[in-house]
Amino acid sequence: MSDSMSSISDKAGMSPGSLIHIGDAYEADTRMSVIDYSKETIEEQVIQSTDEILQYMDKDAVTWLNVEGLKDVEHIESIGKILNIHSLVLEDILNTHQRPKFEEFDDHLYIVLKKLALEDKAFNISYEQVSILVLDNFVVTFKEKTDDIFVPLKQRLSNSKGRIRNLGSDYLAYAILDTIVDQTFALLDSLDEILESTEEELLTNPTSGTLVSIQRIKRELIYIRKSVSPLREMLASIMRSDSILIQEKTNIYFRDVYDHALRITESIESYRDMLSGLLEIYISSVSNKMNEVMKVLTIFASIFIPLTFIAGIYGMNFEYMPELKWKWAYPVLWVLFISIPVVLLIYFKNKKWL
Amino acid sequence: MSDSMSSISDKAGMSPGSLIHIGDAYEADTRMSVIDYSKETIEEQVIQSTDEILQYMDKDAVTWLNVEGLKDVEHIESIGKILNIHSLVLEDILNTHQRPKFEEFDDHLYIVLKKLALEDKAFNISYEQVSILVLDNFVVTFKEKTDDIFVPLKQRLSNSKGRIRNLGSDYLAYAILDTIVDQTFALLDSLDEILESTEEELLTNPTSGTLVSIQRIKRELIYIRKSVSPLREMLASIMRSDSILIQEKTNIYFRDVYDHALRITESIESYRDMLSGLLEIYISSVSNKMNEVMKVLTIFASIFIPLTFIAGIYGMNFEYMPELKWKWAYPVLWVLFISIPVVLLIYFKNKKWL
Amino acid sequence: MSDSMSSISDKAGMSPGSLIHIGDAYEADTRMSVIDYSKETIEEQVIQSTDEILQYMDKDAVTWLNVEGLKDVEHIESIGKILNIHSLVLEDILNTHQRPKFEEFDDHLYIVLKKLALEDKAFNISYEQVSILVLDNFVVTFKEKTDDIFVPLKQRLSNSKGRIRNLGSDYLAYAILDTIVDQTFALLDSLDEILESTEEELLTNPTSGTLVSIQRIKRELIYIRKSVSPLREMLASIMRSDSILIQEKTNIYFRDVYDHALRITESIESYRDMLSGLLEIYISSVSNKMNEVMKVLTIFASIFIPLTFIAGIYGMNFEYMPELKWKWAYPVLWVLFISIPVVLLIYFKNKKWL
Amino acid sequence: MSDSMSSISDKAGMSPGSLIHIGDAYEADTRMSVIDYSKETIEEQVIQSTDEILQYMDKDAVTWLNVEGLKDVEHIESIGKILNIHSLVLEDILNTHQRPKFEEFDDHLYIVLKKLALEDKAFNISYEQVSILVLDNFVVTFKEKTDDIFVPLKQRLSNSKGRIRNLGSDYLAYAILDTIVDQTFALLDSLDEILESTEEELLTNPTSGTLVSIQRIKRELIYIRKSVSPLREMLASIMRSDSILIQEKTNIYFRDVYDHALRITESIESYRDMLSGLLEIYISSVSNKMNEVMKVLTIFASIFIPLTFIAGIYGMNFEYMPELKWKWAYPVLWVLFISIPVVLLIYFKNKKWL
Amino acid sequence: MSDSMSSISDKAGMSPGSLIHIGDAYEADTRMSVIDYSKETIEEQVIQSTDEILQYMDKDAVTWLNVEGLKDVEHIESIGKILNIHSLVLEDILNTHQRPKFEEFDDHLYIVLKKLALEDKAFNISYEQVSILVLDNFVVTFKEKTDDIFVPLKQRLSNSKGRIRNLGSDYLAYAILDTIVDQTFALLDSLDEILESTEEELLTNPTSGTLVSIQRIKRELIYIRKSVSPLREMLASIMRSDSILIQEKTNIYFRDVYDHALRITESIESYRDMLSGLLEIYISSVSNKMNEVMKVLTIFASIFIPLTFIAGIYGMNFEYMPELKWKWAYPVLWVLFISIPVVLLIYFKNKKWL
Repeated sequence: MSDSMSSISDKAGMSPGSLIHIGDAYEADTRMSVIDYSKETIEEQVIQSTDEILQYMDKDAVTWLNVEGLKDVEHIESIGKILNIHSLVLEDILNTHQRPKFEEFDDHLYIVLKKLALEDKAFNISYEQVSILVLDNFVVTFKEKTDDIFVPLKQRLSNSKGRIRNLGSDYLAYAILDTIVDQTFALLDSLDEILESTEEELLTNPTSGTLVSIQRIKRELIYIRKSVSPLREMLASIMRSDSILIQEKTNIYFRDVYDHALRITESIESYRDMLSGLLEIYISSVSNKMNEVMKVLTIFASIFIPLTFIAGIYGMNFEYMPELKWKWAYPVLWVLFISIPVVLLIYFKNKKWL
Repeated sequence: MSDSMSSISDKAGMSPGSLIHIGDAYEADTRMSVIDYSKETIEEQVIQSTDEILQYMDKDAVTWLNVEGLKDVEHIESIGKILNIHSLVLEDILNTHQRPKFEEFDDHLYIVLKKLALEDKAFNISYEQVSILVLDNFVVTFKEKTDDIFVPLKQRLSNSKGRIRNLGSDYLAYAILDTIVDQTFALLDSLDEILESTEEELLTNPTSGTLVSIQRIKRELIYIRKSVSPLREMLASIMRSDSILIQEKTNIYFRDVYDHALRITESIESYRDMLSGLLEIYISSVSNKMNEVMKVLTIFASIFIPLTFIAGIYGMNFEYMPELKWKWAYPVLWVLFISIPVVLLIYFKNKKWL
Repeated sequence: MSDSMSSISDKAGMSPGSLIHIGDAYEADTRMSVIDYSKETIEEQVIQSTDEILQYMDKDAVTWLNVEGLKDVEHIESIGKILNIHSLVLEDILNTHQRPKFEEFDDHLYIVLKKLALEDKAFNISYEQVSILVLDNFVVTFKEKTDDIFVPLKQRLSNSKGRIRNLGSDYLAYAILDTIVDQTFALLDSLDEILESTEEELLTNPTSGTLVSIQRIKRELIYIRKSVSPLREMLASIMRSDSILIQEKTNIYFRDVYDHALRITESIESYRDMLSGLLEIYISSVSNKMNEVMKVLTIFASIFIPLTFIAGIYGMNFEYMPELKWKWAYPVLWVLFISIPVVLLIYFKNKKWL
Repeated sequence: MSDSMSSISDKAGMSPGSLIHIGDAYEADTRMSVIDYSKETIEEQVIQSTDEILQYMDKDAVTWLNVEGLKDVEHIESIGKILNIHSLVLEDILNTHQRPKFEEFDDHLYIVLKKLALEDKAFNISYEQVSILVLDNFVVTFKEKTDDIFVPLKQRLSNSKGRIRNLGSDYLAYAILDTIVDQTFALLDSLDEILESTEEELLTNPTSGTLVSIQRIKRELIYIRKSVSPLREMLASIMRSDSILIQEKTNIYFRDVYDHALRITESIESYRDMLSGLLEIYISSVSNKMNEVMKVLTIFASIFIPLTFIAGIYGMNFEYMPELKWKWAYPVLWVLFISIPVVLLIYFKNKKWL
Repeated sequence: MSDSMSSISDKAGMSPGSLIHIGDAYEADTRMSVIDYSKETIEEQVIQSTDEILQYMDKDAVTWLNVEGLKDVEHIESIGKILNIHSLVLEDILNTHQRPKFEEFDDHLYIVLKKLALEDKAFNISYEQVSILVLDNFVVTFKEKTDDIFVPLKQRLSNSKGRIRNLGSDYLAYAILDTIVDQTFALLDSLDEILESTEEELLTNPTSGTLVSIQRIKRELIYIRKSVSPLREMLASIMRSDSILIQEKTNIYFRDVYDHALRITESIESYRDMLSGLLEIYISSVSNKMNEVMKVLTIFASIFIPLTFIAGIYGMNFEYMPELKWKWAYPVLWVLFISIPVVLLIYFKNKKWL
């Protein structure tokens, strides 16, 4: 998400609806696959040309076209033509800087959101834009990258277990949405662990590296929140929608995703609060350390500086210094050298510096 | 609540409605008990099989089925079948990471919330999810653990004192809700005490342990708030509901619980404000301490360093140092050694450092 | 308000409507007085038994029953029976942890709020719950303590000046409400003074005691806000109410109290902002002080440590140290001893440390 | 605005509608002037008695009565009687602690707001309450003080330029409102300059006086905001109002004032943000200064303390110290005395302390 | 945007609708150009006199009049007369301190917003007010300065690619709005880079200059937000508008701009969060540096001060100091001189100070 928006600003002044892929070009060719299912039958096929879509239309079966990779703009354009999609929607599909939103047209619905996935243990997160087009008995998904995220969903379709084969394209849209949103939970788990280990580190051995890592998590949370917080509003408007493409009985499933989105948003807010708590611990621990350093310095200096002065006195070379000739002067001084530190140490002890 | 959400993310891609218990497995067998009461009669019974429920249905008496322990998924599943509960609700009952919510169906209501209880004096809090299903003359509660929380309520039912035996399943639902919400007040009491003793500690003898404990309370408050703040919204939607399962005259009782939830939420916000006040005291006290340390160092160093220098001068071995031969030089120096500190101490006194 | 909520939590599980006095028991016996007035006549009487109320009912005159002290639960219970008050309301009257609210019933209105009064100059505040029941031509007030707050209002009633004798029980309720809310202004005055003197103290002679007192005011403000901020919402719902007990023309008076509540709330927010400003001054003044201490130390140390070193050189006992025999060596050194501090002092002057 | 609210609290318990002037008594006699204008004619006159108002009523011409000074309560009272104003409004006119508001009555509108004016260059601000009563063809303004603020408006009326003479009392009310609100812009200009010069000061030569002045501006902003932020809401309710006293076509002018109020409010929020930025710079600059002081101390101490020790060694008086007799010992030591500081200075240079 | 508002306050008291140019006078003469296009034809022309506009009116073709430079007030005035624009709108066009807003009149719409452009690499931003008047088949834009921003839009018009030539004046207004809003993305890109390089700087070599630049970005963000955040509200009211000047089918394009505005606003909020994160890093790094300085000082002082004292002891000149005569005393002392630092260094090592 740290990629710049320059591509958008380059586009400023161009006609809306001019199709250009805006976003990081994951150098993957566009890959299209179709799943066509009804209560009884199901077939899955990889297609090469968008013209093959035509055979799946106007059938009673539900068809799911999954497009991975957005490099081949003409493919998306021809899908748009075949399915009669609004040009602004096509533009939004190709521009991968969208914030999650839901748009309603007469004969199709457009849902766009971010798929968040944990790249590795070091809390690197990848953001991928997924667009979902819902038509009558037809669902199209556009992904930036090729991955396995839809594999369990496809298996459920094949195995015919669950409601999924009996319900229409709106339920399929829900199932896809749910799959993507639930990805975020894994991320929150990982966040949980990282916060815990960071706190552990803070309490035992805080370094300036700890601060850097707190700030890194903080920044990542800002990005995550930006991708996740509009989800709630988006799902609310799906639930409010009176499009004929969403059946009454599917609404409860969208409410379920809505609840998940709500939980994710609240968790992120909690993590933000916790992070600021960690930061406070860090700042305090730095202060505490400085305090300790100062105490050591003060104790050493306060004890030895007066003693050095006393020794300095009797290092003077005056001719008339009667003490220099006294026999017990030196042992008496040693008594001083020992008792002054003892008194001071007791004093510091009382001040709880030791 | 620090348990991870990984179980949810593991479930990603599965069919909604596939029943799996998600949450900490409190290794308790599922224990079911039934209380069946009307104005005149009341009976309580522990049941082994869900089939025994059938005999309590279709009767005029109100039946309360209390299920403790969620390990035996098939029990919950069969209850769901008997009472005709929506599969998403069954899923929510088993997944103990729900945020408090109220859902309305044609012939049943679903309420889920957290029971917060103080585990011990050290402000450890246990979170338990309680689900309440309200049907016509039938109430089911699902708890994760076995405990005594419903004992006083059962006694009120037995003793027939109060309205409870005359009113329907909605009033019973209210009584259960009220019992759970009121648990939180004990928690707030304990919080009150802890904040007071922490403040005491801060003002008398702040240690870095105090900071850690402030942060621990802060984090716990974040969790509590997450569990408690949706209560208000939930109760508002119960009050707004026009389900025939909630009678008009019961509404005022739900408003009462709503008021409690409001008070709890406001108290938690107040505690947050107070905690940040405590943190400010802590940080200031650290600064003040460092100030004090610095003053001690400065006073010692400022007094003895000049004196040591003077002593150093007359420790030099130059052949031509006339003062060394003067008779009164040494006593005059002693006057200096005494008057310089006196002057400096007066100076520091004026600066209010002493 | 620092009293614990344990009494409420003790009540958890009890039947709603079981009457127990919850709150600090101000050990005052319940004292009841009645004022009965119409346009022409007015009489005031202290009554001993709740049965005496009956004679005042069903009359055209407006009756105001003022109950002070909530210890005698049976009195409140019998008043409730006579006036046909909902049991939850009676419970709320006795439980003095209510947040200000307004509840509407068919034949009575229930208003509960806090009377805030300044106990002494040290900004100790007493919180007293006042409940107001408004019926047709009948108003009951329940106070925890006996005091003089209603004396001016009673005088206005006696002297028959103003509208008050011509208007119904709703106007009386307004007059009572207004009297209680206006108490808070005295508190804000006192707050104003305290903030001003605290700021004075901060700028002239900040001590750690100043911090403690800032925090104390801050905590007290949290409590005040908790008691005061729901007032606005409460008055808004009174104004929105379409109960026949509140006449259209009285509404404008409630709007007046609403404006007062708004001003109080906004003032409290302003005070919070100012307090955080004071805290910032305090923290900065601590830093500034430390800076000053450090400068003194640095100036002393930087001047005398080099000089001491130089003196140390010529205190060495090497046989071959030619300078020791030079005649002008010692005076030259004195030139050094004077010029080095001068140079350093000029340097520090340029750095604005002096 | 730092005047206390005690006058209000003194009034607690008094009958609403008892007219007393509450606020700072600017010791000015009440001064009343009337402007009466129609399309063709205009006359301006100072009047002594409120009875003179009567001649201006029931005429087609628009009459503007401007009352300056609120000391003579009976004047206001008699105006209220003549114009049939609600007693609560009269009370509000006299009590100069109102927050800006708009109140609608059957035959008159009441607008109250604060006139903010810059007293002098030192950012002292005067707050004056202005009340505007709008009746059919009659406008009354009540001001606390006598000043020139309405002079340009009167000139516009006289010169007959602009719409103002053709439109009714609502347009006059708008013109008055606009004049008062636009005063605030001068204030914001001054604020702009002060913030800029404060920032300049912070970056070049921050003193603790800078902090005090930041805090003073901050507190003044709190007061300004309190006076200004309700304006927006007030103007919105004027625009929403369906009173026959405000004509449809005047609404657009009130929207214009609304926009100004919005801009003022937003500017104040921006200034608050900038102030907190200044505070952060201040705090950082204090830290930076301390850092610099510490570095100087550390450099001096680290260089000379080891050297002094070395000199101390050869100041010892042991009989068997072979070095003392070596011929090259003293020059060798000088090499040490020079090379140790050089090494340390290079070390500090590398640490970027120099 | 740091220009003062004094010009506005100078205007206080003047008649609304008196036309004066308020704002920085970019000393450019007013330059007017007209583009007149229909589906088939298009012509562009620079015009000298406002009278030339008349020939373009009442034609079927859409006319776009672009006015650059606001110095010649009479030009704007005469355009206002010809097109029958409300005088308040003309005033707003000339006063360049407007916040973005949308106003609806019977026969024209008024849109005003800020064009933000990056002046140079040092993050200097220019703010220019652009006003858009939408009439039936006629669009007028007023700009403060002459620049190339509309060149790509004009080319699209000429090349007849896209919808733009087929749709009415509302679509043209959209295209202009879109062009201006999209400018802001370039700014955000630049912000992104600056934040990244600032963070880099902070982590490697923070100086007080870094703080100054953080604060400068912060202040600039406050200004940007002030210009940008009302956009969302403005576009929402365009979308809500039921003016006949905006066709139903154009609404979806305004929704597109709305989405852009939303994304910009959210990005700015994110940047604010990140900036405060940077500030925290800065403050911590200052503390860390001081810590390091203190450690160096403490280590040097703690090691050499005790040693110096020991050397001082045997520099004393007492006659009876038996150690001075011992043969091994001096070597034994050297053992001390070496072992004490070693012990202390191990101690500091254990404290992780080294």
